[in-house]
Amino acid sequence: MAEKVLLRIHRSQLLPAIEAAFEAADTRSKIPILGSLLLRCHGGRLSVRGTNLDIEIEAVCDLLDDGYDAVITVAAARLREIIKALPEHAEISFFEGRHEGQIKLTAAGSQFTVFSLPEKEYPSLGTDVAGSAFSVDPQALSDAFRKVTYVVDTHDDVRIYLSGIHIHPSEDGRKLCVVAGSNRGLAAVKIESKSTVDFPGIILSLETAGAIKKLFAEVKEPLNLTISDIKIKVQCGDVTIISRLIEGIFPREYARLIPAEPTRKILASVDVLQAAIRRASLVASDFTKEGMLLTVEDDRLRVEVVNKQGESAIDYAPVELDGEAGLSMGFNAKTFLGTLGSIATQDVRMEFAERTQPIVFRLTDDREEFFCLSPMHARSAED
Amino acid sequence: MAEKVLLRIHRSQLLPAIEAAFEAADTRSKIPILGSLLLRCHGGRLSVRGTNLDIEIEAVCDLLDDGYDAVITVAAARLREIIKALPEHAEISFFEGRHEGQIKLTAAGSQFTVFSLPEKEYPSLGTDVAGSAFSVDPQALSDAFRKVTYVVDTHDDVRIYLSGIHIHPSEDGRKLCVVAGSNRGLAAVKIESKSTVDFPGIILSLETAGAIKKLFAEVKEPLNLTISDIKIKVQCGDVTIISRLIEGIFPREYARLIPAEPTRKILASVDVLQAAIRRASLVASDFTKEGMLLTVEDDRLRVEVVNKQGESAIDYAPVELDGEAGLSMGFNAKTFLGTLGSIATQDVRMEFAERTQPIVFRLTDDREEFFCLSPMHARSAED
Repeated sequence: MAEKVLLRIHRSQLLPAIEAAFEAADTRSKIPILGSLLLRCHGGRLSVRGTNLDIEIEAVCDLLDDGYDAVITVAAARLREIIKALPEHAEISFFEGRHEGQIKLTAAGSQFTVFSLPEKEYPSLGTDVAGSAFSVDPQALSDAFRKVTYVVDTHDDVRIYLSGIHIHPSEDGRKLCVVAGSNRGLAAVKIESKSTVDFPGIILSLETAGAIKKLFAEVKEPLNLTISDIKIKVQCGDVTIISRLIEGIFPREYARLIPAEPTRKILASVDVLQAAIRRASLVASDFTKEGMLLTVEDDRLRVEVVNKQGESAIDYAPVELDGEAGLSMGFNAKTFLGTLGSIATQDVRMEFAERTQPIVFRLTDDREEFFCLSPMHARSAED
Repeated sequence: MAEKVLLRIHRSQLLPAIEAAFEAADTRSKIPILGSLLLRCHGGRLSVRGTNLDIEIEAVCDLLDDGYDAVITVAAARLREIIKALPEHAEISFFEGRHEGQIKLTAAGSQFTVFSLPEKEYPSLGTDVAGSAFSVDPQALSDAFRKVTYVVDTHDDVRIYLSGIHIHPSEDGRKLCVVAGSNRGLAAVKIESKSTVDFPGIILSLETAGAIKKLFAEVKEPLNLTISDIKIKVQCGDVTIISRLIEGIFPREYARLIPAEPTRKILASVDVLQAAIRRASLVASDFTKEGMLLTVEDDRLRVEVVNKQGESAIDYAPVELDGEAGLSMGFNAKTFLGTLGSIATQDVRMEFAERTQPIVFRLTDDREEFFCLSPMHARSAED
C-alpha cells in the first residue's frame, strides 16, 4: 500500500524548530488547535508555527527534498516528545494517515499514527508588522530582561501598564532602556542599539520577554526588532516571534523615584550580603511575604527576621559606611535578594535617604543600570 | 548576659548526623515531637535521633569539647536548613534560650532562636534488638533493594506480606536472598553474606529499605544486621537504624512461578529493547496503566501501543530467537521497563512459555538474579 509522503526531514532540522514554536503553543487551552503546531512546506523549506493568540512563534528549517507543499497540524506536545525520542540522525517521513484526521510518522524502525486537526482552523496574528526597525545584541537584551523581571508584580491586576517590561529609546536615541516597576521598586538597564532608535515607549509582556530570553539568550546573530503601535516582531536567524504589546503608558518620569539626596552611602559585597539575608530568612514562615529588618551599624548591616511564632534569626554583613549609623528599615527579603541577584558587579553601592524612601543600588563599574527598592511600611514602623 | 552553653560542635560533624536522622523524622506528622530530632550528649559525643515510630535512625558524631550532658529537641526541618546554610567550617554553639522552650544557636556572625519541645516526650523504639546477627556489603544490599523494588505494588492494601521486601537465607546459609513479588511479577537477587546466615525469612518495609539505600549505598564499611522476631537493627559506621518488621509470611515457594518448560528463548540488547518500548509508549495516554502488545517475530520483537483515542505507535528491537515466531502477549510497559532497568548485564535472556504464563528474564553472566514478568490478561486476549 503506497501512502502519500507529505514531507521528509532530518531530526536535527526539525527538533530545534519544534522546540522554538512549542514555546508559543498553549497545550492546556480549551481550544484544541492552540495545542497544535502548524507545519507548512514552502519553497523547499518547512515553517513550524505555534501560537496562543498573544504570541506567535515561527521557525523555518530545511527539508530533505524539494517539491513538498503539505500543510498539516500535529499536537505540539506529542510531536515534540516523539521527535525528541527518535535517534539523533533519524530521517523522518510524514505520511497521510489511513483515516481522515490522522498523520503517520516513520523514522528508522519507529512508526507513529497521531491526530491532525484541519489546518484551515489554524489562527495567525498576522506576520506583517510595519514600524520602527532596529537591531540589538540578543544576549544583552536577554540579560536586561533577566535583571528587571523580579520587580514585576504579577498579582497587580489593576495597573496593567506595570504588568510587563517597558522599553523606550534613550534621549539621544543611541540606547535602549529596559525598565520594570511596581510597589516593590524599580529596575532600569540600558543596552546599546546597533542603529539609532526612535519609537514611542512600549510595554512587552513577561511571556514575550521570557520567550526571547529562552530562545535567543545564547545566540550570536543580531536580533531584529520591528515595533508597530500594537505589535512587535522579533526576528533572529530562522526564528520569528510576533507578539501583541501591552496597552497603556508606563510612567515616563520613573527616574524621579530616586531620592535626590542620599544621607548614607554603603559599599557592600553582593555575595556576603546575599548569604546573610538567606540565612536569616530561614526562620521566615513565608519567605515571599514576611519582612526583614535591616539596620545600618558602623561597619556592618544587621539583618533580623522574626516569624509569626516568635522564632528569630540575626545575621550580619560587613560594609563600608559613609554617613551615620542607626537607620532601621523593613524590606521584603525576596525582593531584596532579587535586587542583589541583578547586580552584575562584585560589590554594590547602596544609597539610603529617609526611612520611608527607597534605597538605590548602583554598580561599581560604569554600566548604566540602577535598582530602587521600596521599604515595607509596616516593618519600618518598628524602627 | 552569660547564657548557658549546651554543646559546641563543628558543622562537618553535625550535618551528616542530622541528614541521617532526618530520614526517619516525620515532618508532616500531627504529633509535633515526631517532626523533631533528639540531640543527646553522652560520653563526649553527640547522638542525633529521628523517628516516625515505624523506623528510628540514630547517628553519633563528635563534639568540640568534653563534659556536655545536654538533652534537647529541635524541629528537624528547620535545624537541617540552618546547619546546611552555615559556612562549611562553622563551629556551632547551642545555648539555652532566653525563654522556656527556646534554643539559641550561634555560629560565626549568625544567630538563631528556635523552638524546643520537652525531650521527655521523645519516643523510642528501643535500641535492644536480640537475635540472629551477620554482616553484608552495604553496596550489594542497596543494589539488591534497587533491583527488586519496582515489583512491589504499593496499592495492594490486602496482602500486607507483599508490601515490602522479603529477605531470607539461601538453603546453604551462605547467601542472602532479596525478593519482591506482586501481580506484576517477581524479582529475586542473591547477595553474599560475610558469615553463615540463619534466621526465618523477614519482610522489610520499603521505607526501611529506602533508608538503607539512601544512607549506605556508597559506604565501604560492613553493614551489620541483627534480626529479631519483630525488629531489625541495621548498623554501619556511626549510624544505626531500628525498624519494625512487616508481619506476615512471604510465599516460600515463590520460585514455582517460573514456567518449567520455556517454548521460546530470546536474546536481546537491554538498551535497544528499552528504547523501543519508551518510544512506543509515547502515545500511551497513561503510561503506568495502559498495556503494550509484544509480538515475537523471526528476528525481532515488535512493540505496539494503541491509546484510548486511537493513536498508535509501533517499534522494533532486533533479537536472537530460539523457537517459533508468532506469540503475542500484553504487558504493562512501565513494569516491563522496570524489569529491564534491573538487568545488570548488557544483554538479557528472555524465556517465553504459554501466552498466559510469565516471561522470565535472566542475566548473561553467572550472577544469581532472575525476574518474572506477568502478562496483562486483558491484552493477551488480543492475540
